Amino acid sequence: RRGKMAKSTQLIDNEVFRAFATYTAIVLLKMMLMSLVTAYFRITRKAFVNPEDTDAFGKGESAKKYLRTDPDVERARRGHLNDLENIVPFVGIGLLYALSGPELSTALLHFRLFTGARILHTFAYLIPLPQPGRGLSWAVGYSVTFSMAYKVLKTAWLL
Amino acid sequence: RRGKMAKSTQLIDNEVFRAFATYTAIVLLKMMLMSLVTAYFRITRKAFVNPEDTDAFGKGESAKKYLRTDPDVERARRGHLNDLENIVPFVGIGLLYALSGPELSTALLHFRLFTGARILHTFAYLIPLPQPGRGLSWAVGYSVTFSMAYKVLKTAWLL
Amino acid sequence: RRGKMAKSTQLIDNEVFRAFATYTAIVLLKMMLMSLVTAYFRITRKAFVNPEDTDAFGKGESAKKYLRTDPDVERARRGHLNDLENIVPFVGIGLLYALSGPELSTALLHFRLFTGARILHTFAYLIPLPQPGRGLSWAVGYSVTFSMAYKVLKTAWLL
Repeated sequence: RRGKMAKSTQLIDNEVFRAFATYTAIVLLKMMLMSLVTAYFRITRKAFVNPEDTDAFGKGESAKKYLRTDPDVERARRGHLNDLENIVPFVGIGLLYALSGPELSTALLHFRLFTGARILHTFAYLIPLPQPGRGLSWAVGYSVTFSMAYKVLKTAWLL
Repeated sequence: RRGKMAKSTQLIDNEVFRAFATYTAIVLLKMMLMSLVTAYFRITRKAFVNPEDTDAFGKGESAKKYLRTDPDVERARRGHLNDLENIVPFVGIGLLYALSGPELSTALLHFRLFTGARILHTFAYLIPLPQPGRGLSWAVGYSVTFSMAYKVLKTAWLL
Repeated sequence: RRGKMAKSTQLIDNEVFRAFATYTAIVLLKMMLMSLVTAYFRITRKAFVNPEDTDAFGKGESAKKYLRTDPDVERARRGHLNDLENIVPFVGIGLLYALSGPELSTALLHFRLFTGARILHTFAYLIPLPQPGRGLSWAVGYSVTFSMAYKVLKTAWLL
């Protein structure tokens, strides 16, 4: 039992890996929040896509008018998809990066910049802020992932 | 050689990690099945989005009528996107959770609940079942991932 | 310090894991490139979706005509979504596969086939090539992930 626990927790004892775990959990929870934002706009704007979702507003023709798109719902959905497109590479490349033996301070810089940039990106998308607010926050996150990929390829390269 | 094998398989020898690997492979295969469901509806409903995909039905004007949306195709696509939005956080947070040293029984409870909920969600979306069938199955999967994230952050916290 | 470095790099010292890290970084970078392809088409075709993105082309009514869809933009976006749907399972299942102790040569065959197939898929989508070019490249990547999932389930099975 003790041996098994020790084995299972050795990665999580590593400081870089602990930092990766913390920031990855935060950005993935932030991405999950987008589902709630979309649901909030769907309910308050009464804009649904599935006929079975409008039954609470009455059956048949009277509910059909709620099967429509709404600008706020679509905006939240675009923010969610943009998260998927950017947070997936961060998690995949970030895991490999955390295992490639970077300095803790360098790793923390990468993880903090990415997480801050993606939180800013969400606010820039939802408020919305004038450009280049959203574009710049996107570019920071993108560059961080690129930088980690470079370190991974330099360390692991085996084609 | 022996040393390398032992090194590469030590994580997979851990029971919690084996359970994570099993359920992750199952939910990712389930997600991949959505591609086949979409393809099935595209072909049977003759509803395509790329002009080059309709060439089998004749060239030029006669094939253009197959460039259209179909409710069943769109429903399968929404189910697929919902899988991406929910299974990606499960896999990322679940991996960190499996490495955070949980009890096997607690881990199995999380993995089984999530996997069952997502399989139910797919049936609820495709049949479709009346609400709150789809909503509840979505909420169970969401809550499981949230619970694992809490354990990860409690164990790994390093900002 | 030495002990910590050794611990953090042990996985990355494993040859199968190094190959996985290399190919995963490559396919995730390829997926990230789709953002730039979409941005390129949005700017050259002047086809945007967010009102705040068209401000550079003039305020108010004169910029509204750039809020439109464009076939090239939509094609790049579909390629990007297809990448998400297929590269996410590859990364998740591939990680578990790399930890399940496969032969290096077998693992390299899987990773190379998948990476080559997804690069071909992108060209087939963007050019576009006549079918079944895109369909076949999609099927090769899909089958590779399926084959890795089979090995993972055979090695790790614990329900």
